[in-house]
Amino acid sequence: MEGGGSSNGGGGGEWLRPMDAEQLRECGHRMVDFVADYYKSIEAFPVLSQVQPGYLMELLPDSAPRQPDTLDSLFDDIRQKIIPGVTHWQSPNYFAYYPSNSSTAGFLGEMLSAAFNIVGFSWITSPAATELEVIVLDWFAKMLELPSQFLSTALGGGVIQGTASEAVLVALLAARDRALKKHGKQSLEKLVVYASDQTHSALQKACQIAGIFSENVRVVIADCNKKYAVTPEAVSEALSIDLSSGLIPFFICATVGTTSSSAVDPLPELGQIAKSYDMWFHIDAAYAGSACICPEYRHHLNGVEEADSFNMNAHKWFLTNFDCSLLWVKDRSFLIQSFSTNPEFLKNKASQANSVVDFKDWQIPLGRRFRSLKLWMVLRLYGVDNLQSYIRKHIHLAERFEQLLISDSRFEVVTPRTFSLVCFRLLPPTSDQDNGRKLNYDLMDGVNSSGKIFISHTVLSGKFILRFAVGAPLTEERHVDAAWKLLQEEATMVLGNV
Amino acid sequence: MEGGGSSNGGGGGEWLRPMDAEQLRECGHRMVDFVADYYKSIEAFPVLSQVQPGYLMELLPDSAPRQPDTLDSLFDDIRQKIIPGVTHWQSPNYFAYYPSNSSTAGFLGEMLSAAFNIVGFSWITSPAATELEVIVLDWFAKMLELPSQFLSTALGGGVIQGTASEAVLVALLAARDRALKKHGKQSLEKLVVYASDQTHSALQKACQIAGIFSENVRVVIADCNKKYAVTPEAVSEALSIDLSSGLIPFFICATVGTTSSSAVDPLPELGQIAKSYDMWFHIDAAYAGSACICPEYRHHLNGVEEADSFNMNAHKWFLTNFDCSLLWVKDRSFLIQSFSTNPEFLKNKASQANSVVDFKDWQIPLGRRFRSLKLWMVLRLYGVDNLQSYIRKHIHLAERFEQLLISDSRFEVVTPRTFSLVCFRLLPPTSDQDNGRKLNYDLMDGVNSSGKIFISHTVLSGKFILRFAVGAPLTEERHVDAAWKLLQEEATMVLGNV
Repeated sequence: MEGGGSSNGGGGGEWLRPMDAEQLRECGHRMVDFVADYYKSIEAFPVLSQVQPGYLMELLPDSAPRQPDTLDSLFDDIRQKIIPGVTHWQSPNYFAYYPSNSSTAGFLGEMLSAAFNIVGFSWITSPAATELEVIVLDWFAKMLELPSQFLSTALGGGVIQGTASEAVLVALLAARDRALKKHGKQSLEKLVVYASDQTHSALQKACQIAGIFSENVRVVIADCNKKYAVTPEAVSEALSIDLSSGLIPFFICATVGTTSSSAVDPLPELGQIAKSYDMWFHIDAAYAGSACICPEYRHHLNGVEEADSFNMNAHKWFLTNFDCSLLWVKDRSFLIQSFSTNPEFLKNKASQANSVVDFKDWQIPLGRRFRSLKLWMVLRLYGVDNLQSYIRKHIHLAERFEQLLISDSRFEVVTPRTFSLVCFRLLPPTSDQDNGRKLNYDLMDGVNSSGKIFISHTVLSGKFILRFAVGAPLTEERHVDAAWKLLQEEATMVLGNV
Repeated sequence: MEGGGSSNGGGGGEWLRPMDAEQLRECGHRMVDFVADYYKSIEAFPVLSQVQPGYLMELLPDSAPRQPDTLDSLFDDIRQKIIPGVTHWQSPNYFAYYPSNSSTAGFLGEMLSAAFNIVGFSWITSPAATELEVIVLDWFAKMLELPSQFLSTALGGGVIQGTASEAVLVALLAARDRALKKHGKQSLEKLVVYASDQTHSALQKACQIAGIFSENVRVVIADCNKKYAVTPEAVSEALSIDLSSGLIPFFICATVGTTSSSAVDPLPELGQIAKSYDMWFHIDAAYAGSACICPEYRHHLNGVEEADSFNMNAHKWFLTNFDCSLLWVKDRSFLIQSFSTNPEFLKNKASQANSVVDFKDWQIPLGRRFRSLKLWMVLRLYGVDNLQSYIRKHIHLAERFEQLLISDSRFEVVTPRTFSLVCFRLLPPTSDQDNGRKLNYDLMDGVNSSGKIFISHTVLSGKFILRFAVGAPLTEERHVDAAWKLLQEEATMVLGNV
């Protein structure tokens, strides 16, 4: 590895010094400048990568190099071969899916975590990693005004999972094992899960993994008149039928901020149902949880008192680099029962004395990174007041976009906005044969192919709908206004083609 | 957030600029210096953190700050409160468990990945992330001389998982679903898994998650006369009994480099057994896989031709920062059948046309980081020749340590060294009541409490054994020699106390 011209660089002929402090310093400074320059010019790149499948195979050799290359040539390749294939999630013109926030504080946290490069499966492998996670998750629970049972000082506690998919899987497995313990391990085929058709596909995948029979996954149709929230009545009805068939309802998953349209399921009522039947109640607030640190949005979490587990992603809309999904449980013993192993080679005084938390027993994998650092840095370097302002600003920008849509009668806001996501579509002519599917697909494809913005879509009640999710860290009013102008122009184009 | 004195810093009163390029540049440079200084002084810290449980709770406030703090005060806290709680896996005096390698190249890769901060679930979300992963895993498969069926150009392919625990779980679930498809979904209770008692506890956890009945997990006792490898005869015997009981053997897990003592299971014979009974054959080479890029160690993988899945951790002994666990499968369709979901909101042209790989369908979670960057950088910036030398150097140092042990008759090498792990113990006096358990525990506790080195232990055939695993990136001969001297001195102490 050569440091790019410096005598510290070390050519290919030299002995490899894989963690020489001065080489790290020199190369690290160069990478910081590379990254800062990337952010400086980020608006110049097409937001959605415009490459064709297989593009990179043609640009790279088909085997690893025998001899080391220089950092200069690596940077050249990143610029010329990698960046064209990057979809720029951090671009201010990124409005697709839900955001994935980076920030200076989060980036510094990732750097420090990569530097320590510890594997924090047990407390002893780096006490700071476990203890900082416990503390910061308690801080966050207080910011969200979660019930005190979710704190580490009670019987619950928080833990950082990789993603919301892992969070719901961990909750589902703990619930499954609790139910099997009660009803016998032969009863797996009777266990039933309830969620709305707006629930993230991660639940379906979790059910597959946990071995829940596919015919026992109740997908209750959400109510289009309630902004696509599920109704407690529909869940109760499904549940009654199952009970009378001798099945065992054991898990309800509610969502605060669904993926398609940011719907909020009725937590208090679903929680009551879960309680009545001794079911596990999981709340997925992956995206919208961030908003609930603002007092004016906190009411969306009312009912969380009844939850057994609650999840939100700090890596979505909370300036903490991916991945950082926060899961709290009311009773940590269920996680530990499902996930603990205790091989001899991991035994140590602190664990054997039960005087510490070993997060390996709260998650799927054994190994884990020092992820609490970045979340701690975000909270420390920005502070809660600024973070609330950050959320409010995005919601304000989404409101603005919604108003712009309303001002143009060619468009329809499909379901009222709740947070920073706007669901809309271009109204099809009455003669339109597929109810605007092709029209809106072409609109989306047109703006995305321009490279100027990136939006995504969903389908609600059979309607093909466009999603405009505000939440990238650099997005300002001018970006929303420019996106709107682009959408209007493209609308004129595609309507002209009808 | 204040940048530490610069006018670019921005105090608490200003609007939050969470990804301002110049603030990132300034703070990033400061963090690079912090990290380089850490590595420069890494030998000054106790390798194993010496804090007591709960230490951090006393040092940090009990809620998140409302107002932002300065970077200076954050660095002070990292120095004074976090670092004392870090166990220094990158210290050259770290010899515990197995290593977790950091390197300049890996660190740069982590930085760049954190900077792009993409969520690469589908090809479209950043084609470069998926394509670079495909290419680099093909490179690596060739370095390991895996059979061509494991290449992406055939029916197989490689994918980066977080950890070996996730790799074995993914393999087990794919195998489970294949077996359930064949034998009916009611047959879960009949499915049997085979592995040795030296197999990593991750398999046991994977079985719990997959719902395999605990009485159907065959833990076959490894042969102490074969360096703790399992014998094919013992597996066959267990299998015959199960078949005659009407059970369904479906999964064999073999290990190349077991956690306790680096044993190598007989792959060709186990592979033949798996083949005969249409079972899934998984190979866990998490640690020792790295050594197999050297021609003189490649023979340990003979028999991989029969495997359905093969795993090694680039984050252990291959200079790629955690996490980066490489999983190859011979037939990717089994992963896709078990793990794919296709919700409307993720549909896109490239995926619908089946013209691309969507790695979300090869793993547990939906979201995934751009992890191939760091592995690519390690290969590019160091080159295969240097990486082979790196491995050989550690094995040479382990040989040296083994020779030192042999030269002191108070010690015993418990099982012959194969790679860079040495298993040893202090021989107990013949009168010793617990066969040296307390003696060796005290020896380990003594050296670990000194802060000068960190080693870990295991138990083999009832003997309490110390593990000396060479593999930290900065470890040189002088560190091994100093560790030996320390162990000798401590041995004199504890023997004097008997």
